[in-house]
Amino acid sequence: MSLYEKHKDTLKKAIDAVHDRSFYAQYPEHPSPKIYGETADKDGQDKFKASLDKKFEDLLQTDPEAWVGQEESPYLQKPLGILYPAFSAETLIDRSQKAWTQWRNTSIDDRAAILVESLDRFKERFFENAYATMHTTGQGYMMAFQASGPHAADRAMEAVAFGYDELKRFPEKKFWDKPMGKFNVQLNKSWKPMPKGLSMVIGCSTFPTWNSVPGLYASLITGNPCIVKPHPGAILPMAIVVAEIQKVLKENGIDPNVCQLAPDTYDKMITKDLAENKAIKLIDYTGSSAFGDYLEGLDGKIVFTEKTGVNSVILDSAENIDKVAQNLAFSVCLYSGQMCTCPQNFFIPEGGINTPDGKVSFEDFAQKLADNINGLVDNPKAGPFVLGAIQNANTLSHTEEAKKLGGKVWLESRTIENPMFDKARTATPIVVEMSASDEDKFTNELFGPVVLLIKTKDTNQSVDLASSLAENHGAISCAAYTTDETIKNLIMDKMGMAATSVSFNLTGAIHVNQNAGFSDFHVTGGNPAGNASLTNPEYVIKRFTWVGFREPAEG
Amino acid sequence: MSLYEKHKDTLKKAIDAVHDRSFYAQYPEHPSPKIYGETADKDGQDKFKASLDKKFEDLLQTDPEAWVGQEESPYLQKPLGILYPAFSAETLIDRSQKAWTQWRNTSIDDRAAILVESLDRFKERFFENAYATMHTTGQGYMMAFQASGPHAADRAMEAVAFGYDELKRFPEKKFWDKPMGKFNVQLNKSWKPMPKGLSMVIGCSTFPTWNSVPGLYASLITGNPCIVKPHPGAILPMAIVVAEIQKVLKENGIDPNVCQLAPDTYDKMITKDLAENKAIKLIDYTGSSAFGDYLEGLDGKIVFTEKTGVNSVILDSAENIDKVAQNLAFSVCLYSGQMCTCPQNFFIPEGGINTPDGKVSFEDFAQKLADNINGLVDNPKAGPFVLGAIQNANTLSHTEEAKKLGGKVWLESRTIENPMFDKARTATPIVVEMSASDEDKFTNELFGPVVLLIKTKDTNQSVDLASSLAENHGAISCAAYTTDETIKNLIMDKMGMAATSVSFNLTGAIHVNQNAGFSDFHVTGGNPAGNASLTNPEYVIKRFTWVGFREPAEG
Repeated sequence: MSLYEKHKDTLKKAIDAVHDRSFYAQYPEHPSPKIYGETADKDGQDKFKASLDKKFEDLLQTDPEAWVGQEESPYLQKPLGILYPAFSAETLIDRSQKAWTQWRNTSIDDRAAILVESLDRFKERFFENAYATMHTTGQGYMMAFQASGPHAADRAMEAVAFGYDELKRFPEKKFWDKPMGKFNVQLNKSWKPMPKGLSMVIGCSTFPTWNSVPGLYASLITGNPCIVKPHPGAILPMAIVVAEIQKVLKENGIDPNVCQLAPDTYDKMITKDLAENKAIKLIDYTGSSAFGDYLEGLDGKIVFTEKTGVNSVILDSAENIDKVAQNLAFSVCLYSGQMCTCPQNFFIPEGGINTPDGKVSFEDFAQKLADNINGLVDNPKAGPFVLGAIQNANTLSHTEEAKKLGGKVWLESRTIENPMFDKARTATPIVVEMSASDEDKFTNELFGPVVLLIKTKDTNQSVDLASSLAENHGAISCAAYTTDETIKNLIMDKMGMAATSVSFNLTGAIHVNQNAGFSDFHVTGGNPAGNASLTNPEYVIKRFTWVGFREPAEG
Repeated sequence: MSLYEKHKDTLKKAIDAVHDRSFYAQYPEHPSPKIYGETADKDGQDKFKASLDKKFEDLLQTDPEAWVGQEESPYLQKPLGILYPAFSAETLIDRSQKAWTQWRNTSIDDRAAILVESLDRFKERFFENAYATMHTTGQGYMMAFQASGPHAADRAMEAVAFGYDELKRFPEKKFWDKPMGKFNVQLNKSWKPMPKGLSMVIGCSTFPTWNSVPGLYASLITGNPCIVKPHPGAILPMAIVVAEIQKVLKENGIDPNVCQLAPDTYDKMITKDLAENKAIKLIDYTGSSAFGDYLEGLDGKIVFTEKTGVNSVILDSAENIDKVAQNLAFSVCLYSGQMCTCPQNFFIPEGGINTPDGKVSFEDFAQKLADNINGLVDNPKAGPFVLGAIQNANTLSHTEEAKKLGGKVWLESRTIENPMFDKARTATPIVVEMSASDEDKFTNELFGPVVLLIKTKDTNQSVDLASSLAENHGAISCAAYTTDETIKNLIMDKMGMAATSVSFNLTGAIHVNQNAGFSDFHVTGGNPAGNASLTNPEYVIKRFTWVGFREPAEG
């Protein structure tokens, strides 16, 4: 059985899922021994521990020019000591060029099969990857397992499915028969999706896998070799993924340099050397807006960015305000606000929030939110694991900045103890009150555990502020609470025009932070928070060019 | 019967056609009295004549700020004397903004129906438009009828069909049901394609309709109002189209300013005022590379360009070299080389072209081509009508430039008499011999009737030069003649990688210049000749943003 035969049903199901958009997952998100094996967790942890303080020898990239690595664990606040094989931009580009011809001439079916197989192999390392993610990003165990493992693999599968679907969207060949009156003009036509060229994926330090694999797999399925440039602070999770891809490539007789890892160090970053090279045609990037803007401005490149935005919560009315406060408290605590989808600006009318029991005042809601945050972070069985650790010390400065904004502090940020890691770098959310007139102060993202409660004249002003913020400064998510159909439509229209997706009235076990593969388009691509959307058709079709060929039909 | 009911079968057929890519046409290309009516031609001509030397009062744009018009007929070499209502960029933008809300809230079905209806109305003016096109562009009657009428309308229909298909590609609503073990998380989700904003289409002087309607209809179907900025030398053809769109909008209770004409004059162009306005989000452009590059560099815009390129002919081997010379002679004479798909650079091996009767030498082929051109242009029943007239005097200077390149002149450019218009501005093709070593001299487009015969070492060098030219300077078409399967594959691969479509071995009644709606992607978007392709999915999906909404399902 060919590799394509082995995976074609999986591929078919994934393609159906991206069109259907109801719930679908290829890789189970629950790290259960029943699913992944009784010893999977321990084995993964052991494998992670065994990789510390030595060379990472799992890649198939030969003749390293150096061995580098500066990762530090936010839980241990000490270096991981792992060294990765490093190469100059020239070497990486040169090897990528050489590998390209074979890869672009590999059939679409075979490329898809190889990529799906690589995800299945990656699945075998989900637990090892979870520990690698924890100790580079500071994510809690559950998030590290899910986001870096099954959720990332699902988003990669989604990119493969979308790519495959688009590559096969038009007929390979067609007989064209044009009646001209006395005779017909008859042509045989064919079309080929030609890959754009060399691609690179620039990773971030908080979601090294989840934010890198969609672009990586989208470029690979469309025939472009890819250089993965991880953040120097979070290399290991993607090193594992790239290693598995390289092994499957090699097993199938393909040059493993189709997918290369390009680790670097803080003091000598090679990102610009790669990005500015003429041969690089496609760039996927997650990170700061400043660097994203620089990349988007490079000539002759197609750039897919996820940059920064400021996410809003619009509070108008609710059936059960306590459930709302509880849900939002969890949203702002999850990974200490270090998610791109985490809400920051809460817009609340000065007249309060409508509920079936009457108005809940601004102050009452502020207190409820603070109480719920305290309840969560002080719960030793939940708080440390939901908060995780702060990826880097700079993020801590944002709680200080928030304090300097000058508004009433409803809740101070503080550290908490992590029962498993006594050195963990932790910070609970700070909650600061602001006025709608302070607009110049709340338009910036204060990345990390920062909540601003903004007192508005009324919900109309809340919506205006949230939508203009999204339009001018970017937004990736919006949570809105309203029981009023007119207000709901207003929010859908205004936030929709600001290209921001909206979650309404979430309570219980679903949060605005969460975007599901195969259903939610992640980032819309239509506001300054990023120009790409995972995974819509644009995300894959910009990676290749349709070229047509035609000639007279015989006879 | 609703307008949508009236047109839904037409729409369905067009959608099927863009996926099938075999021959399809909605509007018959033959200007036959049997199809269009016995008096259609005369009526159209009368209507055109009646429009001369007066105000064009057919538009529904009120309170003109000026009346302008500087069109001149290349056949009469005198002004048409038509004045169009003109407006400042501010007024146009303001009216477009106001019309947008209603248009974006018009259902996709209704938008599609209105647009198809407008094409049917335009059909009633195909003959009038043919004369308008002749006397602005210099095209011959047949081309002016076909390219500006049925072919343009077909490409507009194609854009509507693609847009409709993409807008309906994902479910409007979906129930999302995620098993969480002990319970399920259930959400109702919905998605909306939000239009990007105000759009503008910048027309050219040679194909004012054909090159403007695809972008116009693509923007309109996706919910964006559009300002049509025609070339000051070719306003009337698009004025007719815009007038018909406006009438259908008004009949359906929609603000006609959804589609506005923005005529200007050579001395006071408003293109930049419009393009640089923050409200303009989408720009479609056909014209010079310099201005196209400027537009592509504007911040915060999505720009679709068709710029200039240098098209190649690769001559390796042929079954019947006389038929090849005849076919190519017609290609270079058609509209005096003023088509973006017209070949300029003929690459011929110094050892000659292989045929079943032995080698045809470079010199013999050059003579055959010159003879065939002479035979065509000196045929009074064909020459004047195939050549048409030269749109503007500047184009004539390119034959002079070609002469200065210094190679042997195989055929001089000359004027011919047009039996219907004694003042017609005409020029036959100049044919100049060059050497492959003159690469710096033949990388520029010499727009108009210029043929360069370039002597190469062998076909490999021909292919290398043609592909590097396309990659670095752009190309929209490539004609290749070879009977060798290996050479054919080499050309497909190299020209494919340079994102240039190839027509192989065309003889008889089909020419490399011709690209058919619903089948040929026009321009690939993958080389410097332009960043867009008519009509591939990218051409429509970049005009809107998918935004998602979700909330807990009841119960």
